[in-house]
Amino acid sequence: MLSCSPRATQSISQLHSKTLLLLQARGQQAQYSSKASTKTSAIGFIGLGQMGFHMAKHLRAKSKGPFVVFDMNKDVVSKFKNENSNVLVATSPADLASQTSVIVTALPESAHVKQVYLGENGVLRGIKKDALCIDSSTIDNSVSIDVSEQIIAAGGRAVDAPISGGIMGAQAATLTFMVGSQNAADFERAKVHLAKMGKNVVHCGELGAGQAAKICNNLLLAISMIGVAEAMNLGMRLGLDPAVLASIVNTSSGRCWSSDTANPVPNVIATAPSSKDYDGGFKSRLMLKDLGLVSNAAKDSKTPLLLGALSENIYRMIASDPTMAEKDFSVVYKWISNNKQK
Amino acid sequence: MLSCSPRATQSISQLHSKTLLLLQARGQQAQYSSKASTKTSAIGFIGLGQMGFHMAKHLRAKSKGPFVVFDMNKDVVSKFKNENSNVLVATSPADLASQTSVIVTALPESAHVKQVYLGENGVLRGIKKDALCIDSSTIDNSVSIDVSEQIIAAGGRAVDAPISGGIMGAQAATLTFMVGSQNAADFERAKVHLAKMGKNVVHCGELGAGQAAKICNNLLLAISMIGVAEAMNLGMRLGLDPAVLASIVNTSSGRCWSSDTANPVPNVIATAPSSKDYDGGFKSRLMLKDLGLVSNAAKDSKTPLLLGALSENIYRMIASDPTMAEKDFSVVYKWISNNKQK
Amino acid sequence: MLSCSPRATQSISQLHSKTLLLLQARGQQAQYSSKASTKTSAIGFIGLGQMGFHMAKHLRAKSKGPFVVFDMNKDVVSKFKNENSNVLVATSPADLASQTSVIVTALPESAHVKQVYLGENGVLRGIKKDALCIDSSTIDNSVSIDVSEQIIAAGGRAVDAPISGGIMGAQAATLTFMVGSQNAADFERAKVHLAKMGKNVVHCGELGAGQAAKICNNLLLAISMIGVAEAMNLGMRLGLDPAVLASIVNTSSGRCWSSDTANPVPNVIATAPSSKDYDGGFKSRLMLKDLGLVSNAAKDSKTPLLLGALSENIYRMIASDPTMAEKDFSVVYKWISNNKQK
Amino acid sequence: MLSCSPRATQSISQLHSKTLLLLQARGQQAQYSSKASTKTSAIGFIGLGQMGFHMAKHLRAKSKGPFVVFDMNKDVVSKFKNENSNVLVATSPADLASQTSVIVTALPESAHVKQVYLGENGVLRGIKKDALCIDSSTIDNSVSIDVSEQIIAAGGRAVDAPISGGIMGAQAATLTFMVGSQNAADFERAKVHLAKMGKNVVHCGELGAGQAAKICNNLLLAISMIGVAEAMNLGMRLGLDPAVLASIVNTSSGRCWSSDTANPVPNVIATAPSSKDYDGGFKSRLMLKDLGLVSNAAKDSKTPLLLGALSENIYRMIASDPTMAEKDFSVVYKWISNNKQK
Repeated sequence: MLSCSPRATQSISQLHSKTLLLLQARGQQAQYSSKASTKTSAIGFIGLGQMGFHMAKHLRAKSKGPFVVFDMNKDVVSKFKNENSNVLVATSPADLASQTSVIVTALPESAHVKQVYLGENGVLRGIKKDALCIDSSTIDNSVSIDVSEQIIAAGGRAVDAPISGGIMGAQAATLTFMVGSQNAADFERAKVHLAKMGKNVVHCGELGAGQAAKICNNLLLAISMIGVAEAMNLGMRLGLDPAVLASIVNTSSGRCWSSDTANPVPNVIATAPSSKDYDGGFKSRLMLKDLGLVSNAAKDSKTPLLLGALSENIYRMIASDPTMAEKDFSVVYKWISNNKQK
Repeated sequence: MLSCSPRATQSISQLHSKTLLLLQARGQQAQYSSKASTKTSAIGFIGLGQMGFHMAKHLRAKSKGPFVVFDMNKDVVSKFKNENSNVLVATSPADLASQTSVIVTALPESAHVKQVYLGENGVLRGIKKDALCIDSSTIDNSVSIDVSEQIIAAGGRAVDAPISGGIMGAQAATLTFMVGSQNAADFERAKVHLAKMGKNVVHCGELGAGQAAKICNNLLLAISMIGVAEAMNLGMRLGLDPAVLASIVNTSSGRCWSSDTANPVPNVIATAPSSKDYDGGFKSRLMLKDLGLVSNAAKDSKTPLLLGALSENIYRMIASDPTMAEKDFSVVYKWISNNKQK
Repeated sequence: MLSCSPRATQSISQLHSKTLLLLQARGQQAQYSSKASTKTSAIGFIGLGQMGFHMAKHLRAKSKGPFVVFDMNKDVVSKFKNENSNVLVATSPADLASQTSVIVTALPESAHVKQVYLGENGVLRGIKKDALCIDSSTIDNSVSIDVSEQIIAAGGRAVDAPISGGIMGAQAATLTFMVGSQNAADFERAKVHLAKMGKNVVHCGELGAGQAAKICNNLLLAISMIGVAEAMNLGMRLGLDPAVLASIVNTSSGRCWSSDTANPVPNVIATAPSSKDYDGGFKSRLMLKDLGLVSNAAKDSKTPLLLGALSENIYRMIASDPTMAEKDFSVVYKWISNNKQK
Repeated sequence: MLSCSPRATQSISQLHSKTLLLLQARGQQAQYSSKASTKTSAIGFIGLGQMGFHMAKHLRAKSKGPFVVFDMNKDVVSKFKNENSNVLVATSPADLASQTSVIVTALPESAHVKQVYLGENGVLRGIKKDALCIDSSTIDNSVSIDVSEQIIAAGGRAVDAPISGGIMGAQAATLTFMVGSQNAADFERAKVHLAKMGKNVVHCGELGAGQAAKICNNLLLAISMIGVAEAMNLGMRLGLDPAVLASIVNTSSGRCWSSDTANPVPNVIATAPSSKDYDGGFKSRLMLKDLGLVSNAAKDSKTPLLLGALSENIYRMIASDPTMAEKDFSVVYKWISNNKQK
């Protein structure tokens, strides 16, 4: 179970007063006229991609009231409308915003988030007062904060809520959401909806904190996975049986998720992607994308990452191979161990 | 609980027949005359250092029959004799070997192990037929195998049994031993004695497998710890509360011993060395020593280690500072994060 | 002497026809009304900073006709006007553009270049038809290309011309300019002016090629310097005299500018910054800035950089120390060798 | 031209007095009886491999007096005897030593050098008083010093003189020798013979200094070459013509032997191995071997190598491919750039 430490909760309540001042200051400079708040609790969903399609389905099924969707891809919109009942289709993000008081977005990259919220016919052109925008995309920490602040300045509310759990988690509604918000009320309001699409909803801190937590976890994940790949490969070349080595590591100080759950050596963990030719799981090219967010954040915050920088570039080499790019990121074991046999 | 996988057990029984052939071949070329086996089950212990002193104490207390010790340092030998009953003192490793049928060694480095077993007045000069040599030192995999093979060629038996658990584990007899042996019988014979000094005794495979397992675990440990240090540092610079970030990582795919048990950020885990000014724990200079064994093994086996090689050199930088050298290896967090404030 | 290889010249002439098509296409979508071209050959200069101040002085002194300057800092503008004759002061980049047919910019970072050209009251708001914009800033390759294309779409012409040579080169007018342009004519036109501020003006290829060449050189420079620091440090620890080692390397396959001209070990090369307590030269924080441009370009172009990524992060550690940040980047030797004595 | 700096010369003369004391001390503990010095100036050569065969041919042709050879491979000895006049064949290194006053060895690795000098029937079993041993092998610095000191303790003289220049240099007698010696006299004595096999003979300092200088140069060489490969690859992906980029780098601060003489991009430098499918030059597996000596020396001297350690492991990956192992080490460009197209 994920829960806030007492210390974190405290920092969030301290946050409230700061937030109020900020909101008062912002209120005066809001550059978009926000429409009057209404009693309707219509929900909007933008981005019916591989993740969003499943997430929206659960949210539709478990929510009352109108449900409005938007996606650039008309086919996927039709498909969603056909497969779910009580679905309205918006003509643009602005149109969707003008009809809803809660908006969930699930988009691929920073550029799409900026476009959907800030662009021509973007959400901000139609946002209602106090409408809550929940962005579940994994994007640059700095972009996320900037977009959220613009939403708030325009009269809305915003949280960042990137996801861990993958497509299978989206299908099964077992996702984890890491949430950043200006205050506890926004978090609680978002949680009601996020809990319909996942099983863990964790408050990570202020705006951008969800993005920050996600990329820090994935930075460590990438490093650990390469570390397991190197350690397993060394052990096997020294004559160790991989299952024996894994069993030792998994009860010792080397234990980690990359070894005990997703071990990159085939047939050590039957359910790991490595045992299914590295299919399923978390694609190398998506790990590379997240490591790109990591290095952007590290550059902005002047944080040195020695193993992290090297890991990003190892995944850049791996993802340059079109086949490996689509495999689970544990395929790094194959990359580093194959060299012998080439 | 650590246990051999079915596959590992199989490989050990296959090992038996190979071993027999090997032993027959070796028997004819044995270059040391081994003394006749006796019924006495006297135990010898060489190396009464920081680890060995405590280990020998437990072994003495829990064993019947004569107990013979040797150490270059006469003071420590006197101290041991004073603090324990029924202790005999040998004048050399050879002298000790001539009186014992089980010999445990706990020595700092490869050179000492070679000296004690193969040197002038070394164990091989006095070894009895079938005497079992248990080397608990952490040394080069290749040296360990070589010494063990020479012991066997001389008529003795040998296992490598490096330790995990540190001085506190030695004091409390809660160590883990990772054992490599030519056959299951040697392992079982060693286990009787090792179980008196620790709580886990794991069969890792053939001769040298104990060393191999230990250094592979510690390679992964070093990488994970630096990874946690980088990820925590990044998160904190992005504004996350370290306790919140750790709680998220520890229930996500980034979870690992270095985060949930020995988190390098002070006051995240109260019992971690980082919360006690990095005292206690596993010293940076000892981690560096083990990473030196890793890189030797990697060089010999032509195994590329990208993160591993970088990690060794990061610890070389850290251990070049006399203060940090003596601190727990999680002090890497301080090294990588301090730079900001300098 | 720098000169284009035959192959490069060829690629530039092939470029012409592509460029013409592109310009025709662009011409129709130009979104800014460009003012009528005039016969005046007034020159504008934006950015009178540490580099720009000296550059503008030389350009003013060696050019006929009006010379218009702009800088946010009014004091520096006054100082420039006082120290040079025939200087006009513009009220904004747009104002400057409306009076000039050649505009040189020397700005610190990508954001400033975007602001000065594309922002409110930016150059594009006043640009004359066919006015040539020469940006000598070192900025992101992708930003440079984007800004240049917008200038051209608005009716102007653009080249990127980042500088090598530092403040001393700016003072002595001995800078090297690395130029990217859509065609040879733009390059020739820019060269007339650049030659007044430097001694080498090199055509590197299409738009952005100047930026690309500069950052590739500096990437290699950073790697070489760290390499020299590591090799000299190792040699000295093995007992070699640094001057002897440098003399051997400098006539062998290890020779490079970082060893024979800017050797990072004090007193090996009398004129190197290392021999003057690492003062003068190219500051660590500026090397870090350039490595940030490198990693942005590498990310965009999906190019793996193993040593390069590590080098950027080594400079991030160095530049986090306020003292080392201002020292010549060869101070990496001190960083890597000091650790022993700490 | 390579020459000692004044400072180096000074340190060598200081060395003389230290050396005399050392020699007096050593003289009393010499454990091998050295045979009486003779007037004959017979030369011995051990190791007629790819380098040694050509070197020995030149030395034979340009020297008067007896010339004695030894190699384990009888065929190569016959071939050498057939192709050269006045060649005697020894039955062992000891036999060779008993007939010669100057001995040159050219051997592959540390183990061979130890065997040839210190082993059963090794040079030390037959060495004459004051016989000069010149080891031109590239081996571990520490082994080189140890073997040299044992030679001197046995009554001989010793210098280390590793080679730069490759097989083509051996054929053309244009090698460079980097020499370490206890005093200037030994160096001058060795130089007479080395000058017959090469064109540069450089005094690098005390015993082991030749080895140290060679590996430091090659460490820098490996780093520079990977740096050039990364920088060229980045430039090309950004659209630069490789010849143009190289011409810019070669007149800028990035210039180095790996760019201006052995550029790893095919057809940038016509005479570079890269332009001949990476044939000729310095094989990747030999660069890896030298980087192994580097990391041993770094470990012994506690010297951190960040780029160096990574470079060694990059070459380990490259050399694990049997084809690339035999290619010039500039093939790293292919390794790092190919990934895109895979």
